[in-house]
Amino acid sequence: MYVILVYDISSEENGQRVLNKTFKICKKYLSHIQNSVFEGEISESKIMKLHYELNDVIRENIDSVIIFKSRNEKWLDKEMWGIKEDKTNNFI
Amino acid sequence: MYVILVYDISSEENGQRVLNKTFKICKKYLSHIQNSVFEGEISESKIMKLHYELNDVIRENIDSVIIFKSRNEKWLDKEMWGIKEDKTNNFI
Repeated sequence: MYVILVYDISSEENGQRVLNKTFKICKKYLSHIQNSVFEGEISESKIMKLHYELNDVIRENIDSVIIFKSRNEKWLDKEMWGIKEDKTNNFI
Repeated sequence: MYVILVYDISSEENGQRVLNKTFKICKKYLSHIQNSVFEGEISESKIMKLHYELNDVIRENIDSVIIFKSRNEKWLDKEMWGIKEDKTNNFI
């Protein structure tokens, strides 16, 4: 399935460390398309693994992750305004 | 149509002012669900107005806006991990 993931990590209490870890985990499963936005094709079982890994890192009282799931990427059109997505990010 | 909008506004060169303006414009058309994420039902003509207004504000070399469009919200499942969406934001 195709998903869009966006996170909002608070800068409080070692936020930068949490942010870095969150970024790294998401990067294992999805493509980075904007500051705190990832997208990609992923199976339900991988989503469960991703959820499990993120649960260990994000703080449920101050951080949040939203995941939008679509059975088919074709059902979504994507437009980018301003600077365009930086695909080089995928190779970090 | 149902859209998800995410922005990434650089803090450079009066970034806070740009961020505030971007937020206000998006808020006129969509519901705020996370730091820099909005969603909602909106017509194509309203999207064009939104695009037009944002174009006046965002800096095309350093800011970006991504808009995902789906003809039907039912085609997307949404999950929230960590803190849940703050619907009170809609009443600001």
